[in-house]
Amino acid sequence: MVILMDRLDTPSGQRAVARCTELGRAPYSDMEGGLFRPYLGPSYRATCERLAQWMEQAGMATRMDAAGNLVGRYEGLVPDAPAVLLGSHIDSVRDGGFYDGMLGVILGIETVAHFAHAGKRFPFALEVIGFGDEEGSRFPTGMLTSHAVAGVPQDPDPAMADWAGEATLASALAEFGLDAGHMHRAARRRDGILAYVEAHIEQGPALEAADRALGVVSAIAAQQRYRITLRGMAGHAGTVAMALRRDALAGAADIILAAERIGRAGTDGLVATVGSLDVVPGAANVVPGEVVLSLDVRAGSNAGRDQAVADILQAARHTCAQRGLEMDITLQQDLDATPCDGRLTELMEQAVGSVTGAPAPVLVSGAGHDAMIMAHLAPVSMLFIRCAGGISHNPAESVTPADTDAAFRALITFIGLLERHSG
Amino acid sequence: MVILMDRLDTPSGQRAVARCTELGRAPYSDMEGGLFRPYLGPSYRATCERLAQWMEQAGMATRMDAAGNLVGRYEGLVPDAPAVLLGSHIDSVRDGGFYDGMLGVILGIETVAHFAHAGKRFPFALEVIGFGDEEGSRFPTGMLTSHAVAGVPQDPDPAMADWAGEATLASALAEFGLDAGHMHRAARRRDGILAYVEAHIEQGPALEAADRALGVVSAIAAQQRYRITLRGMAGHAGTVAMALRRDALAGAADIILAAERIGRAGTDGLVATVGSLDVVPGAANVVPGEVVLSLDVRAGSNAGRDQAVADILQAARHTCAQRGLEMDITLQQDLDATPCDGRLTELMEQAVGSVTGAPAPVLVSGAGHDAMIMAHLAPVSMLFIRCAGGISHNPAESVTPADTDAAFRALITFIGLLERHSG
Repeated sequence: MVILMDRLDTPSGQRAVARCTELGRAPYSDMEGGLFRPYLGPSYRATCERLAQWMEQAGMATRMDAAGNLVGRYEGLVPDAPAVLLGSHIDSVRDGGFYDGMLGVILGIETVAHFAHAGKRFPFALEVIGFGDEEGSRFPTGMLTSHAVAGVPQDPDPAMADWAGEATLASALAEFGLDAGHMHRAARRRDGILAYVEAHIEQGPALEAADRALGVVSAIAAQQRYRITLRGMAGHAGTVAMALRRDALAGAADIILAAERIGRAGTDGLVATVGSLDVVPGAANVVPGEVVLSLDVRAGSNAGRDQAVADILQAARHTCAQRGLEMDITLQQDLDATPCDGRLTELMEQAVGSVTGAPAPVLVSGAGHDAMIMAHLAPVSMLFIRCAGGISHNPAESVTPADTDAAFRALITFIGLLERHSG
Repeated sequence: MVILMDRLDTPSGQRAVARCTELGRAPYSDMEGGLFRPYLGPSYRATCERLAQWMEQAGMATRMDAAGNLVGRYEGLVPDAPAVLLGSHIDSVRDGGFYDGMLGVILGIETVAHFAHAGKRFPFALEVIGFGDEEGSRFPTGMLTSHAVAGVPQDPDPAMADWAGEATLASALAEFGLDAGHMHRAARRRDGILAYVEAHIEQGPALEAADRALGVVSAIAAQQRYRITLRGMAGHAGTVAMALRRDALAGAADIILAAERIGRAGTDGLVATVGSLDVVPGAANVVPGEVVLSLDVRAGSNAGRDQAVADILQAARHTCAQRGLEMDITLQQDLDATPCDGRLTELMEQAVGSVTGAPAPVLVSGAGHDAMIMAHLAPVSMLFIRCAGGISHNPAESVTPADTDAAFRALITFIGLLERHSG
């Protein structure tokens, strides 16, 4: 670890935060008074130019790939060595925060800068990638550009219009000198990528609650989302005796609490949420006749998610039978879990443990990330950084320079461990 | 009871149903394809004319009072004797049913017709009243015209516009030759009214569930309505661990079930309802940060209602303390219970028992009625008639001729008992 100690007095964390902050306003934002950096917009171009400067200062050669992703490369001991790819996404949601995505790109640059400054080369190249579209920031998609890099077919329609209705995917790419018909050329060869490593703010409060700066992601959650309709019998709130009611909202209350109870009892990152609920007719003096609610269940494994869903739906059916309610259930979203690579995760745990002096918290990511897609191409590892209040997708998004510096040190430690174990 | 037996073969129930049905369409409705009979509209005029014909055929002298109520009078043994007033309201909600209100007016006419046909006179006069506004059918009021008759100040604004924005209360009254400034002249003297007796469809399923045609009302419920706002913390449904959530909807579920549990455990007509509920932000992938719900509690006595409200709000506060939620509670409506007159209720129970051959079910009316207001002027009694499915304020409102005939026989029995006991 001597190589790390050299840098303990450097302001890498502080610089990373400062750079994310700099990129949080015009010309790096397309929105007045806040950050909005949609894929292939004017602020996207300005941001890529600024990032490319920093990449080049850090010793990297830069290029834009066929999908509009920005890529910097720091060669290894031999030319054309396979690469360890560090990165995250450049785009942001409307009125988003400075760190979601961008922090992972900037930390990748800091990592390479560290080794370049020390003149250190590895048996592998180091690359930093800034993905163009992860958030669906401009088009009704999501992770469009990691699909292209991983070679996972998504077949976006080149004629699809952006949210503003001002451009198509084809015309937006053309403004960057790119061709929608050639996006697939961004695909990397399997033997060219040793690993994909993504640092990202946690977007949740677990690290803050545990008083820990960093966490290691074991998997990106399996998810299912359902729409549940309960039908009972509407009636006058003053005249229908309690014993004669078939109250759809009371049935929904049972389901909400069952989801909570089953979610709480679970392990492996299990979360169960009823986030939306509509009552028909929804008047103070009418016993609810119908309720439509959402159920979102996520866990670190498909099996964990499936068991929780089965338990919640069984509880729902039991409630409906008891209460004389009818129930319709529609599956709306169904995503498999993406486990992070076991060996890389162990190395990341070691790196975090070494930097923080305590065992690394291991988390399931409930949110999706480009790593989900990149896992189809290469082993992936994710490092989570504590963010204030677990807040993301919001101008209040916040990280500390100290935590960010710890993340930087964990990444360089991880690269060192990778070198030692890949020999 | 001999006088009753004479009529057991008459079609009074069938005629009452037929008359309500006849009044369910043009020219007695202002709505195409359904019934809507707003106070002082064209259909209201036509209906009053038709009702006045029937009243006169039944031996009554008719008049329209200063508030636009239709009144028929059948004199007693001596002129100007105090009256037993039978009736309900003429107006209907939009797309309403044939029986809500009108059945009580028509049954009053049938009752008088019966005694007139038999040449029977009482020490008291019999009057039938059709109230013009009970439903708030035309103006943003309710029970406007029983307030006038009972002399209970309501001080309606003569300039208030109707729902259609086409007339004011003053102009609508003027079309009937009435003066908004003189509505108070509809007030009756206390010594001129012995009792007010209102027959009405139940508007609930209790009689149907008990397989009984008729019920006697012990009280019109005390009611309170609250608006409750719960504030927790919104968060990403995938990234906020269950243990770290402050889920406003899960708190609302506790309150919904507490209201149900406390309502079910109550007596004396206690009902507790959460009828409306709104979730903020209300997205499937966001833990609910805020919920606004209604709470409506009614019982046969103020004390019963107050105890239930206290218990539910205590449960709500307990939930909020446990879950780290903030709660705002706003009282939106607060109506005292209106007990029906004890002696009249006993006589009505006797009458129902005699007609049906079984003890009369005694109910609390959870819905409001003109009797609530008339109780300020005179002792009141209410007779409930079973309606299919407990449905009201709906074209599906339905009663059977047999049940209606039982109600008719209960009313004439009641008048007979009143004569015997008022001697």
